[in-house]
Amino acid sequence: HDPLTIGSSEFHSRLLLGTGKYGNLSQMQRAIELSGTEMVTMALRRIESHESQDGQNQQEQLLDFIPRSKQLENAACRPVHFMPNTSGARNAKEAILAAELARELLSTNFIKLEIHPDPWHLMPDPVETFHAAEKLVQKGFQVLPYIHADPVLGKRLEDVGVAALMPLGAPIGSNLGLRSRDFLEIIIQGTKLPVIVDAGIGSPSDAALAMELGADGVLISTAIATSADPVKMAVAFKKAVEAGRMAFLAGLGLKGQIGEGSSPLTDFLG
Amino acid sequence: HDPLTIGSSEFHSRLLLGTGKYGNLSQMQRAIELSGTEMVTMALRRIESHESQDGQNQQEQLLDFIPRSKQLENAACRPVHFMPNTSGARNAKEAILAAELARELLSTNFIKLEIHPDPWHLMPDPVETFHAAEKLVQKGFQVLPYIHADPVLGKRLEDVGVAALMPLGAPIGSNLGLRSRDFLEIIIQGTKLPVIVDAGIGSPSDAALAMELGADGVLISTAIATSADPVKMAVAFKKAVEAGRMAFLAGLGLKGQIGEGSSPLTDFLG
Amino acid sequence: HDPLTIGSSEFHSRLLLGTGKYGNLSQMQRAIELSGTEMVTMALRRIESHESQDGQNQQEQLLDFIPRSKQLENAACRPVHFMPNTSGARNAKEAILAAELARELLSTNFIKLEIHPDPWHLMPDPVETFHAAEKLVQKGFQVLPYIHADPVLGKRLEDVGVAALMPLGAPIGSNLGLRSRDFLEIIIQGTKLPVIVDAGIGSPSDAALAMELGADGVLISTAIATSADPVKMAVAFKKAVEAGRMAFLAGLGLKGQIGEGSSPLTDFLG
Amino acid sequence: HDPLTIGSSEFHSRLLLGTGKYGNLSQMQRAIELSGTEMVTMALRRIESHESQDGQNQQEQLLDFIPRSKQLENAACRPVHFMPNTSGARNAKEAILAAELARELLSTNFIKLEIHPDPWHLMPDPVETFHAAEKLVQKGFQVLPYIHADPVLGKRLEDVGVAALMPLGAPIGSNLGLRSRDFLEIIIQGTKLPVIVDAGIGSPSDAALAMELGADGVLISTAIATSADPVKMAVAFKKAVEAGRMAFLAGLGLKGQIGEGSSPLTDFLG
Repeated sequence: HDPLTIGSSEFHSRLLLGTGKYGNLSQMQRAIELSGTEMVTMALRRIESHESQDGQNQQEQLLDFIPRSKQLENAACRPVHFMPNTSGARNAKEAILAAELARELLSTNFIKLEIHPDPWHLMPDPVETFHAAEKLVQKGFQVLPYIHADPVLGKRLEDVGVAALMPLGAPIGSNLGLRSRDFLEIIIQGTKLPVIVDAGIGSPSDAALAMELGADGVLISTAIATSADPVKMAVAFKKAVEAGRMAFLAGLGLKGQIGEGSSPLTDFLG
Repeated sequence: HDPLTIGSSEFHSRLLLGTGKYGNLSQMQRAIELSGTEMVTMALRRIESHESQDGQNQQEQLLDFIPRSKQLENAACRPVHFMPNTSGARNAKEAILAAELARELLSTNFIKLEIHPDPWHLMPDPVETFHAAEKLVQKGFQVLPYIHADPVLGKRLEDVGVAALMPLGAPIGSNLGLRSRDFLEIIIQGTKLPVIVDAGIGSPSDAALAMELGADGVLISTAIATSADPVKMAVAFKKAVEAGRMAFLAGLGLKGQIGEGSSPLTDFLG
Repeated sequence: HDPLTIGSSEFHSRLLLGTGKYGNLSQMQRAIELSGTEMVTMALRRIESHESQDGQNQQEQLLDFIPRSKQLENAACRPVHFMPNTSGARNAKEAILAAELARELLSTNFIKLEIHPDPWHLMPDPVETFHAAEKLVQKGFQVLPYIHADPVLGKRLEDVGVAALMPLGAPIGSNLGLRSRDFLEIIIQGTKLPVIVDAGIGSPSDAALAMELGADGVLISTAIATSADPVKMAVAFKKAVEAGRMAFLAGLGLKGQIGEGSSPLTDFLG
Repeated sequence: HDPLTIGSSEFHSRLLLGTGKYGNLSQMQRAIELSGTEMVTMALRRIESHESQDGQNQQEQLLDFIPRSKQLENAACRPVHFMPNTSGARNAKEAILAAELARELLSTNFIKLEIHPDPWHLMPDPVETFHAAEKLVQKGFQVLPYIHADPVLGKRLEDVGVAALMPLGAPIGSNLGLRSRDFLEIIIQGTKLPVIVDAGIGSPSDAALAMELGADGVLISTAIATSADPVKMAVAFKKAVEAGRMAFLAGLGLKGQIGEGSSPLTDFLG
């Protein structure tokens, strides 16, 4: 028994999934189901835009996914939490508005706070994110801010009362892995909050490494959704996250520079 | 169904285990059982020295491990192959002698060929290994040579008729991971033989990475045996190897330098 | 002719030096002289504390260093700019106060803005740094903020009107090199400001790499000051910065995965 | 005074240059001159093929380069040694033949031994290289074998009596840098021979790093010859090699994981 506690909620899976970029919704549902995830995130923008368009003409509706998820929960015998995100917000004001809409639409206090004025690398804005987080906490949200792997920003957000930190490993969608590794380690050592590595993870080995370093969870989106076989890849990530977590708990050996051999090196053959 | 074929044998697990450095034999047995491994390696030197000492005064006999392994196989409902190694041999002559003794003692044609005159880093000798491999193949062995991650040596050993290549990731027992990564990739691309990464793997994420690069298996020894909880660590490696293999089969995404985001970036709340 | 322009000033050296941690002042002066640097930074705190103590009882006064620097300039036939820094400031208010004191004491508009509430890794606070930079620019300072390698923060500081960006490579004093490499590259690509890599550079090869990536300069402190031979190390960094800059200007070759050889591979001795 | 001694010769430069891939010979000559190199290597195959063709119809003759090098030596006030290499040889026999031809043509005992049966990555063959080195040493050559970064092979070649080791950093022509870094460090620590890193170095920072690790020299070919400005790049490498060597001699600081700051962290403005 090794639950992940975020705010007042407990999760048994440490793998969070995104919902963008899948080829189709049934593929996404199947990936979500087999990944064992209990938290999926979705851009409020996307939910909202579908609603305003009324979406009648699209065969597969994104919002359908939510009611259908009940079936999924039944099948999987576990709840799947929907964590809306504010992706697309360019400043604190837009993000707060998005969060409030999301709370109404989805009846959840969780909000993944993403503010990226930069349309190129989608990197988060530390100043706007900090100010938005402050306000959202005051408004009763459980805030999970997407941030650069900046230990001081993480510490300040902790002081403000966010529910978890979501530092990036590399640019979103880049599959580059833990390019911010040293800084992630400092964040993990320095905070009491859950740390969920959020962007850049491109392969199960990256996810396992994040967990071995002591991260509490990882969020995977592009690496699963754009795989040639998203369902198989989802299972691969499930296993990798479990592997990394178990290794963290079991305790990894020290790294040496000089091999000592795995067998006693007394003389051979007498 | 995705078997690993080495010589004329088929395996369902791609995780090979060493037998050195465990705190005690029951821990080792349990780790072997839960890891799902079907191949364990053991220094002939150790088997042999126990025999010559008659070993009566030791409570836990290494050779006991072999008959007891039958129980283990019964429990695990799968065979566990014992692959003797020539660890401790300093040249081709010693290695060949060790291989022949091993074949008699263990009734197996498999031999993990290790020749390391260097007592410090236990790195393999390419010249002696090549010459020993040539002779052992002629003598009907299925040879799995432990080598530096040297693509040309790998190619020449393939020409000679070895059963698999076992290049190192880093010095034995160092837990440093895939420090030879670029060269492992070249080996994997260039050979038709199974490639089993042999030394240096320190964590499940390393093992997953090896599999993602296309390795056919990994051999883990120190990283499991010296963990504070070898049994949990064995399960972690099991999952990681499966994760890496599944990701390799599913197809990993390309790495970019520039994020594209996981959601369409049309205007927000517009 | 390849000057580095920061604000309204032109420099011929791209190597900036710190003044802390030297064994003694004459060693520091000699290192400064032979490094060819034209910009040295000094904690206002240190200047100030020496003044308030009147410093009579210390043989080597830090403030002596400033008048003596005139001799140094004469010897070196070039001016050395003193760039005060606000190291030790824990928030914007303290930093602004320090900057104003520094301007009075040293008659310079340059201020290296450092705000690090964290006494452990001395990492910069993005929110306080942003707000202090805004105010200091309004007060007519040429602000060089020390920041995490955060591209969005860099962009926002550019919009505010700072004179250069000083992102970190690794924690101050760690000698770990460019652990933020990917993010430094994004900063360099995205800004029109000079980028001076500020912390973590531990060796000349790190400095050369920063310049090859397109950084406009590097600031070196610990790696020179704590070397067994700071003067020789200062010259080593001088050469490395020049080497990296020349390579950047000459244009580095593409990295391949597959060798093509440096000689035509027609048949041999045919 | 810090000479590099190879066999019975002393060199003041630690930068060796190749001669392939240059756009034209005058560019090559100028690069050689300004690099300060005292050792250049050239494929015997190329020398030989030009001779057999009589080469009258080519405006710029490769062999012209040799007599012209006398002018170069006069201009540079230092001798430039020509070190023929056996590039293109696929086995020991071809390499030995090439070495003997080279000795006759160029009146030098130095031979850079390269045997690469693999036309793809041009990686060296350890077995053939070992056997050829043995014979060439017996024949009175000063042998500099190009090898994989294999510490045991290096040790065995040292026992045989070669003059220096030339391990690779990465595949020839790849510009990938020191991908074999850990193994280069083991080689350097374990041998009394000069170690000259031979292939893969793509930038001055790579060269500086090799020297900082304790390499005695580097050989650069593709990275200079294929630069848009080979002459400037040659100077960049000259400075980088000097920087790395000076840093090695001065003593690099330890790498930490936790910053200690470059200024005393007593209270600020207190």
